[in-house]
Order: sequence, then structure tokens, then C-alpha cells
Amino acid sequence: MPSYAAPVKDMQFVLHEVLMVSTADIPGYSDLDPSFTQAVLDEAAKVAQDILAPLNGAGDREGCSLENGVVRTPAGFKQAFETLREGGWMSLDAAPEYGGQGLPYLMHSVVNEAFVSANMAFNMYQGLTHGAYSAILVHGTDAQKTKWLPKMVSCEWTGTMNLTEPHCGTDLGMMSTKADPQADGSYKISGQKIFISAGDHDMASNIVHLVLAKAPGGGEGTKGISLFIVPKVLVNDDGSLGARNAVSVGKVEDKMGIHGSATCVMNYDGATGWLLGDLHKGMKAMFTMMNEARLGVALQGYAVAEAAYQNALAYAKDRLQGRAVTGVENSNGPADPLIVHPDIRRNLMEQKSFVEGARALTFWGATLIDRAHQGDAAADGLIGLLTPVLKGFQTDKGFEMAVQAQQVWGGHGYIEDSGMSQFARDARIAMIYEGANGVQALDLVGRKLATDGGKHVMAFFDIVKAECKAHDGDDRMTGLVEPLKTASKQLQQAGMYFMTNGMKNPNAALAGSYDFMHMMGHVCLALMWVRMAKAAQDALDAGTGDRGFYEAKIATARFYMARQLPACGMHLARIESGADTVMALGPEAF
Amino acid sequence: MPSYAAPVKDMQFVLHEVLMVSTADIPGYSDLDPSFTQAVLDEAAKVAQDILAPLNGAGDREGCSLENGVVRTPAGFKQAFETLREGGWMSLDAAPEYGGQGLPYLMHSVVNEAFVSANMAFNMYQGLTHGAYSAILVHGTDAQKTKWLPKMVSCEWTGTMNLTEPHCGTDLGMMSTKADPQADGSYKISGQKIFISAGDHDMASNIVHLVLAKAPGGGEGTKGISLFIVPKVLVNDDGSLGARNAVSVGKVEDKMGIHGSATCVMNYDGATGWLLGDLHKGMKAMFTMMNEARLGVALQGYAVAEAAYQNALAYAKDRLQGRAVTGVENSNGPADPLIVHPDIRRNLMEQKSFVEGARALTFWGATLIDRAHQGDAAADGLIGLLTPVLKGFQTDKGFEMAVQAQQVWGGHGYIEDSGMSQFARDARIAMIYEGANGVQALDLVGRKLATDGGKHVMAFFDIVKAECKAHDGDDRMTGLVEPLKTASKQLQQAGMYFMTNGMKNPNAALAGSYDFMHMMGHVCLALMWVRMAKAAQDALDAGTGDRGFYEAKIATARFYMARQLPACGMHLARIESGADTVMALGPEAF
Repeated sequence: MPSYAAPVKDMQFVLHEVLMVSTADIPGYSDLDPSFTQAVLDEAAKVAQDILAPLNGAGDREGCSLENGVVRTPAGFKQAFETLREGGWMSLDAAPEYGGQGLPYLMHSVVNEAFVSANMAFNMYQGLTHGAYSAILVHGTDAQKTKWLPKMVSCEWTGTMNLTEPHCGTDLGMMSTKADPQADGSYKISGQKIFISAGDHDMASNIVHLVLAKAPGGGEGTKGISLFIVPKVLVNDDGSLGARNAVSVGKVEDKMGIHGSATCVMNYDGATGWLLGDLHKGMKAMFTMMNEARLGVALQGYAVAEAAYQNALAYAKDRLQGRAVTGVENSNGPADPLIVHPDIRRNLMEQKSFVEGARALTFWGATLIDRAHQGDAAADGLIGLLTPVLKGFQTDKGFEMAVQAQQVWGGHGYIEDSGMSQFARDARIAMIYEGANGVQALDLVGRKLATDGGKHVMAFFDIVKAECKAHDGDDRMTGLVEPLKTASKQLQQAGMYFMTNGMKNPNAALAGSYDFMHMMGHVCLALMWVRMAKAAQDALDAGTGDRGFYEAKIATARFYMARQLPACGMHLARIESGADTVMALGPEAF
Repeated sequence: MPSYAAPVKDMQFVLHEVLMVSTADIPGYSDLDPSFTQAVLDEAAKVAQDILAPLNGAGDREGCSLENGVVRTPAGFKQAFETLREGGWMSLDAAPEYGGQGLPYLMHSVVNEAFVSANMAFNMYQGLTHGAYSAILVHGTDAQKTKWLPKMVSCEWTGTMNLTEPHCGTDLGMMSTKADPQADGSYKISGQKIFISAGDHDMASNIVHLVLAKAPGGGEGTKGISLFIVPKVLVNDDGSLGARNAVSVGKVEDKMGIHGSATCVMNYDGATGWLLGDLHKGMKAMFTMMNEARLGVALQGYAVAEAAYQNALAYAKDRLQGRAVTGVENSNGPADPLIVHPDIRRNLMEQKSFVEGARALTFWGATLIDRAHQGDAAADGLIGLLTPVLKGFQTDKGFEMAVQAQQVWGGHGYIEDSGMSQFARDARIAMIYEGANGVQALDLVGRKLATDGGKHVMAFFDIVKAECKAHDGDDRMTGLVEPLKTASKQLQQAGMYFMTNGMKNPNAALAGSYDFMHMMGHVCLALMWVRMAKAAQDALDAGTGDRGFYEAKIATARFYMARQLPACGMHLARIESGADTVMALGPEAF
């Protein structure tokens, strides 16, 4: 059975030595001193390790089942959910007026990493509730907030997001779910939604479905879409539960992974719903939550890879096989541990440098969300730009690294007992949901690069430039800064290629969008590694007693620059080859 | 449910227009004229499509189970096995004196592609038998061949290979299975073997296990290992089945994929076995089959990707979602098909250019095997060099492409019903078994590059050079030849780096071994694409009536050069960064 230990020390390093959050001048951050976050993380680590991780493999094996119209979650989930609810873990960053603890989104993210690493499927129930909470908080009337939020904050009731239908996922304009206005101001919702995570389960007394549907008079395509609150059980004026709404589960899907998460077909048969936000502005309402939801998925990408990496590392240290080519290292044993072999080391370093880089990037992204919540338009624009990069790059790489972790285990990794297959199967979904990664690339290149006249991408390049400049003349940093400069220039060159060619032929830009997303992901991680290396260097200069920890950060930064960043040159060459070879064959010629 | 149609036309193109097999001057090839191979392939296609493909998804869902000590295969497998046996499909390239049809190994490979694409798990039973047959054919006494081969050729009895034990896979020197010599010349075999494909099942009356074990007096490590024939049921002198041997199934493994293939823990409790080949030369006996077995796995890599690609393509043409950025293409429908979108097209072209290139490379490899069987030492050396490249590169890419095919299906690809998850899960094992891909890279860089003084790698570069030179002055080929030249030079440069640095520090070579394997894979595929483009160009010049087919080959070749070959530059940069950053952290510093 795989094991998991929350990397609290690494988290603290990013929070306090890289992002220096307690002095970051963001409202709500001044309380985030090292001892406070250490205390929160130590407790979160216990929950993750002692409660969630032990249910991960069992949840995968047992999965969810539909019994008499109700979804049953795997054994132990219900009690664990109750324990987390009681511990207040569901409401860390929720508004105090609705029972939340009012911590920054950053703290939600940091804790979430540990929870997702320990049990991604379990964490979906709370994650979806968090998304639905945010939507009601931003778009709800005061009455709606008072009615729905307190129980959602406590996770007594959970939430869902209903977008996809059998014939449309990305292209929601084709949606056919209807909202029929009633005399009392409510609507009757009719239609079928699919892929609804936490669509039904046995861990909450009510489920608050947020449903996109078409109300009359909104026009064609996405313009006609509105967002509705459709509870599983109707709620009386006094807050007590009333009659069952006309919502039912058609099916629980059999998926490649995240078996513990109930993915449901939901049937709305004239179910009673109430408009959330403005009529016919449902897409806009959905999109305001999108950054957060996508960042949550970006986090899943590296969090699952972290868990997989820990188990690959343990196996590489433990499993004896072959001898080091440079001479026997374990002369008392029948063979040396796998970790002596250069290709195993390469594999592990790729995992380690990705996971630690992605953690820093994700936490930085969370600080931008917190700034944006406080009305910082620049931060809002920047995180809008970075969101598709984090989502697409981190989930692609997270899956790739989970597969590499599985590879360290050889044949044993293919056997389900090892748990290594589950990491790969679970990580796979993050590349798909909340917008498949090809859609992320389209969002980045087709929309975000040009947003506000390209202001945000220019701001990003300025940040990279400033970081490089800050280390001018620091010989110890030159070896790290130069590769970042090169990669950043290559990224700019790719952007220029799009600008020059994309106007006359949009395909010239879009055929390179996936490469651009990955290239930008690498530049972001390299930026994080420069920052982490500098922080480590500072600690070493200050005479820290823990030299090994900081020296490892610098060595890992060097690895990333030498071994991962060269991908940028490849992506640039692919981008600059244009759309011609990509689009040469008509559909009939395939 | 996914569908499959054998790509007979593409296979014929490679056989007759690229490899020109019927005039290739290889003994046994003169019969392989286009009408003969067309007839074989048409029949093989029917078997693959009508018998094997329909069992693929069901076999995955049902899997194998152990009941009262006997493994039960999924419903339908037994009957299908019987049908293939009767059709003579199990014995295409087996020796006529033992009931085979005496066709070249090439024809076995071509037919095998269709069978593996249709149902990889099912095909394992016959594949393992083929391997065991080859071992007995090469190393057995006449009496052993007469006793075992006829029933193995007909697949009345199947075969297995028993190498791995719980504590050793790659490092077989640690093996603890013992062979105790008996007065009658037989041995008593005792020990446990794991990951034994087709270790037991209900489709044959006997199973011939080939088991590696240590007999007394052989010395330490792999030197003491011998190979034994250990049947499930003892065979009387008259060929009838006798008593049950002391071999039993301990467990059927629950794996990530290939659920229809029974992967068994085998317990040998003083089972009776007979030495196969020379005493204490068991590793050598095993290795003589390794090229074929590994090429078989290399074939699985792209064959599963082919099946996945077909279903991704069908979905991309069928699923309506969004509109082409260059203007509506399906004005009668509510949206355009996915295939109009440049990033979907990029994805599909990556799959197509890989699968078709790998097919050509694999068939070429099979012709080298046939030449080697006829005593051609140069061909034997070349296929020895190429085997780790084909195995490592094609299985890595095959999995990657199956994952990309799944991605085209969006959320539907994550649902098991679609069958797209199965392709990815099945393809995953090919990166692991028959030597994990890291071991292939080690074999390539640590052993094969230097074999016979580097003669074979020099011969490989000569082949590339000659191919490039052959198109000198042909303007239509320049755009394809130049990238191949560049990539080949980069590969040579990487080899030079290893030579210069690997002597004083072997890690400097081994830390780059995985990159080298991939780089060489790309050069091989680019070589194939130059050959295919030339063949297509020739057909066009000759005024073929099927212009679309040949133009698509040339367009796909251009795509490969523009969009895939740039990976070589990245791999070179990674290799030339050396071992320092890879090995910087000691095991304790992770």
C-alpha cells in the first residue's frame, strides 16, 4: 500500500522564504506567520495522512454504486467526511458571516494540496461544494446567500456544477436543458446533465446543484444560458428540509480513475430552481468561478504527482537490483538500491523538480487570486493569463510524472496492489475536466494573450525580466538566470510569431497553441526555480543549520534548467513551422 | 464500443512500395508478391475485426479469475482461440517439419499487428507460445523438438517464459529458484515465479513452461542459471498426457490493463523439468529469443496506438463541437466536427505520423530478423542495435499516443464504456515488460553502441547517409532529407559526447541514455518517412490513380519532420548537460 507524508517543510519554504507571505502586504496575510501556518499544516498533515490516505486505495477498489436511486460512497468516506466537517477543514477560506474561518484562498490551496495528494477522489466532494459556494457568494442575492451558504460552508449540504450534456461539453451553446419560468418567480428545469461530480452521494443531507439552462428569450447559443440553483431536497422557509425535488441520478459512470468520486448522469424532470445572478448571463456567472476551479485542477496535477513521487522514491531507495556502474555501493547487500542507477535518478529528478516547481507556482497563483479578491486588477489579469498555463501544463506534466513514478516500480507498478497505477489513472482526469487541455491552450493563445491589449502577457514578461535583473552580478545565480532569459526570449519569439502570422491565418497561431502553453509552463517553473534557488542561497549565506535542504533546492534548480528547460527550443521550432503541415490533410484524407 | 479495421492498404504500401519485399532477395520472400500478401492480410483482417475485436472490451471488463486452481479466461476467448488455431494463424512462421507454414517472420509480424490492434490481451497467449517455441527450436535436442514443438506450433499446448521472481526482475543473478538434478537426468524445480503471462488458462490441454533456475555448480550470479522445460502436465513417451506436474498457480494479478491476459504467480514445488540447451547457459539461451520478444512488444506499442487512433479519428469526424476559427464548415449542422480545430488536427497528425512510421520501422526490423535467421551477420548486428530503440521508443510513444487519442474524446474518453481508457491502460504495460524502457536505454548505450567495436551503429549511420545521398538533387525530397540529416548529425554528436565523456565517467553516458534512445527513435522514424515519401512520390510520378493516398503520405512525412523531429535538439541539449545535475543529490538528499 502506498504511503504519504505531507511535505510541510517544503510548503513552509515556499510560503515564507520564497513568497514571504506574512510581509506580502495582502489583506488577511499578516496573520500568516511561520508558526501559524506550521500549526495549520501540521494538523492538515495529520488529517491527510491518518484519515484520507488510508481510504485512497480502498475507495479506488470499491468505487461508488447506485442503489435504489441513491449513490453509495466507498466504506469509510462518510465518517471521514464528518470528521473533516467537524474539524472545520471544509470552510478555511469561507466568509465568516456564513460560518467560514475567513482565511485567505492561499491557505485553502496549501491544505488542499495535502488532502488531494492523500485522496484526490474524496476531496472532490468538498472541492465542488467550494466552487458552488463561490458562485452563490458572488452572484446570489442576500436572501439566497443566507439560505444556502451556511450549510454549504459547513458541508452539511454539498454542491455541484452542471454544465455538460451528452451532445455538448466545450460548446455549451448547443445546450438543450430548459428553464421554464413559473408564476412564483421560480423555474422548472428539464434536461439531462452528464459528468456531474458529486452529483449524488450519502455524505450530506442535501445537495445544491448549480445548473446551466436556457430560459426563454435569451437568443441563440451561449447568450440564452442562465444559471440556476436546483436543490436535491427543497428547503422550507424556516431552513428545514422539505419535499424531494424532481432531480434524479440516471447512472454512476464507470471511469478510468477517481473511482471514489461519484460521477453522475443527472436527470432534471421539471425540477424547481431559482435564478442565480442575471437572466441570460449564466455563462458569465460560471466564468467568474473558472479561474479558481481551474487552479484547483492545476493543483490536482502536481498533488497527485507528489504522492506518486514519494512512493517512487521510497521504492528506489528500498528495492535492490543491479550494481552501480561506478562501483558497488551497498556491499552488505545482494545488490544496490535502484536509486544508484543514473536513469532512475534522472526519472526521480524530473519528478522532484516538477512537483516542487509546480507547488511554488500554484501557491504564487493563489496569492494572485487573493490579491484579485481585494480588487487588484493587475493580479486579476495576470492570474487570468496564467490559469490556462497552470491548468494545462501542470496536469499534463502531473500525469506524465505519475506515469514515470509508476515506471520506477517496474512490473510491480502495473499491479493494482502497488497503488502506483491508481495515481496514474486518477491524475489522467485532470487533463480533461474543467476544460480539456486543448481548450486551455485555445483560451491562452486565442483569448488571454490579447486580453486588454496584451497588457497581462507584457506584465508577465516584465516580471521575468525583473527577476533576472535582480540577480545581475550575482555569480552564483548566473547559471540559473541565463537559461531563464533564453527560454523567456524563445517564448516571446513564439508570441511574435503568432502576432505576425495569426492575423492573416488564425490557424498559424492555434496550431502552435499547445506548444505555447507548455513553453510558458516551463518558463513559469524556471522563474519559480530561480526564486527558490535565491531563497535557498540566502538561507545558506545566513548560515542556516540545515544546509542539506537548501543545497538540494539549488541542485534541483540546476537540474530543471539543464534538463527540462531545453524543451522550450523544441516547442519554438514546432510553433514556427506553422500550420501548413498540421492542416495539410483535409478530414477526408486521414 | 470502439471499432477496428485493419489498415491493409497501409500494410501493403510498406511491404511492396517501401520495402519491396518480393524482390528483396531474402530466402522465402520470393513468394511474397502483392496478391499473396493481400490475400493473407484480407483474411487476417477478417479474423481481427470479426473475432478478436468484439472480445476486446468484454475481456477487459471480465478479466481472468482463478477458480479451484485453474485460471478462467473471459467468455469467448476459448472459442476464439480454437478458431484461430483451426485457421492456422498460430503457426504462420513456424517450421514446416513441426506443422508450421514456414512463412517469414515478417508475415508473422504483419498479421500480428492486426491481431494486437484488435485485442492485445488475447494475443498474449499465442505470443508467449511463439517465444517458447523459438527457444526450443534453437536450443532443444531433436528429441525435445519432436516431443514439444508440434503441439506448440498448433497451439494445442501453449508456452510461457518464467524469469521474474518477487525480489528480482532485471537483476536475475539474485534468482533463488533451484533445479535439483535427478538420477534419470531430469531436475526437480522449486521456487516462485511472478508476472507469468499465460501462466495458466483454460484454452489448451497443456502448458509448456520455460523456467530459469539455478542448478548446482554454476557459480554466482547469472552464471549459475539454466533453462528448463517444465510442463504443466507430464507427457508420456507416446505423446499422451500423463500426471499433473508439481506446478500451481498462486494468484492471478489484478493489473492496470490487459485484463484478458492471465498474469500469474507460479509455484514450482519440486516440479519435474528437463534442461533446455547447455547447463549454466540459461541466460544466453534466453537472450537469443530476446530480440524477437522485444520486437513483439515494440509492435504492441504502435499496434494499440493504431486502434486508439482509428477511434480518435472517427470521433473527431463525428462529434460536433464549436466552429472552425476560419469560418463555418458544417453549415447544415449545429456545430463543426472536432477535426476542424487546429489543435485536434495536431493531435491526430502526431498519432498518424507515429503509427505509420513505426509500422514501417517494425516491418523493416522484421526483414532484418529474417535476414539474420539466414545467417546475415550484418543484419543480426543491426537488429541487435535497433531492438532497444524500437522497444523503448515505440512503446513510450505508443502509450503517449493512446493517451492523446483518449484526449480527443474529452470526458467521454475517461468513461470506460468508450474503450479509449482501455487502449491507454493496455498500452502502458509495453513500456514495462520484456525489460523496462530504462533497461532498454541502458542496453542501447551501455552495450549495443559499442558492440563489435561500434560497427553496427556506424552501419546505421551509413544507411541514413546513403538514404540522404540517394535523393541528392531531387528538389521534391530536399525538405524531407535536410531535417533527417540534421537529426542524424545531432545523434552522432550525442554518441560522440558519450565516447568522450563516458570513459572517465560512465554516468555521463548513462544519464543521457533515455534521451539517446528517443533521439535514435526519431531518426529511425524520419528515415522511414523519407523512404515512404519517396515511394509515394514515385507512385505519383507513375501516374497512380490513387493520388490522395500518396499525397497524404508525403504530407504526413512533412509533418513528422516539422513537428516531431525537433525533439532531437532537445534530447541533445539534455544529453550534453551531462550527469552533474542528474547525480548531484545523494540518495539521502531527496
